[in-house]
Amino acid sequence: MAVSPRDSAAVLAQAAVTVGPLIRSRVSGLPPEIRHVAGLHFGWWNDDGAALETAPAHKSVRPALTLLACQAVGGRAEAAAPAAVAVELVHNASLLHDDIIDHAPQRRGRPALWAAKGLPAAILAGDALFFTAVQTLADLPEASRTVPVLLACVQALIEGEYLDTLLEATADATEHQVLAVAAGKTGELLACACELGAAAHNAGPERAGHLRAFGHHLGIAFQRMDDVLGIWGDQAVTGKPALSDLRARKMTLPVATAMTGDTPSARELRALYRAQEPLTGEECLRAAELIEKTSAREATLERARQYTADALKHLDLAQPEPQAGAELTALAELLTARDR
Amino acid sequence: MAVSPRDSAAVLAQAAVTVGPLIRSRVSGLPPEIRHVAGLHFGWWNDDGAALETAPAHKSVRPALTLLACQAVGGRAEAAAPAAVAVELVHNASLLHDDIIDHAPQRRGRPALWAAKGLPAAILAGDALFFTAVQTLADLPEASRTVPVLLACVQALIEGEYLDTLLEATADATEHQVLAVAAGKTGELLACACELGAAAHNAGPERAGHLRAFGHHLGIAFQRMDDVLGIWGDQAVTGKPALSDLRARKMTLPVATAMTGDTPSARELRALYRAQEPLTGEECLRAAELIEKTSAREATLERARQYTADALKHLDLAQPEPQAGAELTALAELLTARDR
Repeated sequence: MAVSPRDSAAVLAQAAVTVGPLIRSRVSGLPPEIRHVAGLHFGWWNDDGAALETAPAHKSVRPALTLLACQAVGGRAEAAAPAAVAVELVHNASLLHDDIIDHAPQRRGRPALWAAKGLPAAILAGDALFFTAVQTLADLPEASRTVPVLLACVQALIEGEYLDTLLEATADATEHQVLAVAAGKTGELLACACELGAAAHNAGPERAGHLRAFGHHLGIAFQRMDDVLGIWGDQAVTGKPALSDLRARKMTLPVATAMTGDTPSARELRALYRAQEPLTGEECLRAAELIEKTSAREATLERARQYTADALKHLDLAQPEPQAGAELTALAELLTARDR
Repeated sequence: MAVSPRDSAAVLAQAAVTVGPLIRSRVSGLPPEIRHVAGLHFGWWNDDGAALETAPAHKSVRPALTLLACQAVGGRAEAAAPAAVAVELVHNASLLHDDIIDHAPQRRGRPALWAAKGLPAAILAGDALFFTAVQTLADLPEASRTVPVLLACVQALIEGEYLDTLLEATADATEHQVLAVAAGKTGELLACACELGAAAHNAGPERAGHLRAFGHHLGIAFQRMDDVLGIWGDQAVTGKPALSDLRARKMTLPVATAMTGDTPSARELRALYRAQEPLTGEECLRAAELIEKTSAREATLERARQYTADALKHLDLAQPEPQAGAELTALAELLTARDR
């Protein structure tokens, strides 16, 4: 039976429908006080415990990858649902801790949990969701194969996040270091999402390995496109103002590339990034101009294209079932599009 | 072969010798940047990476319980070493996060990691140690029995810690609430330490259950004695100044008990705990006096004695091997002694 591939919007919506209730049921098993603040993070209720009519739908990129990876190796999406839940819980746990670390006051259009309920709530809710993720896999018969994959992924994720804070503190980074951060912070979890999806149908090591590599390269490409949008993106599309990554002095690939070398532009950009005060609007514009001058923007876009192409090569080598393969390709293109 | 029981100092020292190198080897497997800050927390090296000649020995109470619980059901201590490592890693992970939450600037006579290296290092090193703990168990053949026990324990631990911060924020608590915090923060991990020790020799559910209950009651008794020492303890013994728990306005059992009711003492103590400013030395002395007046000190000591007695009853019901039973009894008595 030939089925035509769904478009990515339908794929993402279906993933949200599949994992949403399972995440909610898992979090419901937490002790009451932590459950309450975890639900605040997800937008399920307000601080009085009143259910929010329209819980904000959030992107289900990672669960979609897990479900599709399972289908790509011939399994049913439902078989990978617990793995998709685990991956999404890890993602949310790390958001809770990252928002503290980055002093990010907002998350999904609402105050971040640390800003709304304090540091203890956000640290401990993050801890709880991390462990809930492991519990989701530990309960399954294939736990001995899947739990170690998730644990190794989280350790790499943590290192990536920590490397990121170290790079931002030094205000100086090489392209290699910036790529290592993206590999840890974004690549590992997308790789794990795909690998666990394949594992849910007990795929052989070669197919699982290629799906893992697909996710890993896709994660880095995604992060590179994020870098470009964080400087030159349209607020209507990205949800954050143009230049916001410069204002926050994030160490992204365009910045690291533009800083390299001993040109006047590189020197001026380094000096801006080393200033103690937050950058003014004018300084942000100047920084963006300096980055353009060095063609670091084009170089970053080229990197994103390369990583996307590599991701799709691995997808091809995984010999995916046709529909899932087409849907994974479309999703990869969406995630690395300039207007995503 | 009749062997005479070792004294508790020898038991604790042997536990440190057994688990120390294994903890170090586990942490060595972490990615480099996180490994570095984790080693700072353990006192293995300084920030330049130079090994510290005398890494501060730290108490190995939890590992000792795990090893002894395994011996109590007829196993060899070594069989429980990975479980003891996992429990000690969870303990250290939670210390890293608790010190942030409690604004505690010192840990084991050195600056706490958050104070020395910042919030990101301490949050992420805590995350990494939590996952290292799970990895330690996940690698073993009995993982399907032991990992869920550890995960459930950590969820209860997290809730206990969060309840504690909520109680301190309200400056008002019932004895029931304070006992629930101790059950979560201290009881659960000691219970888990004992249960995992028994599980390492595949003890039957009844013996394992009684050893678990022994650890749980012991944890609560230990916490109650801590409450008393935190107010009236000798700095030379406790390592922290007398009255320190009052200065920090910790919600301990003597405080909660003394606040109960509508007597003038209770009202005055409630007012002191609700003040916005830190308590002065004079106010701390006054608070201690008010607590004495209500006989809350004696009531707390009586609670500690009851929980210790209940712990020992469960130990007896576990029908421990004689030497391990005697050593567990001695350790329980040490941990709940007034001059520990």
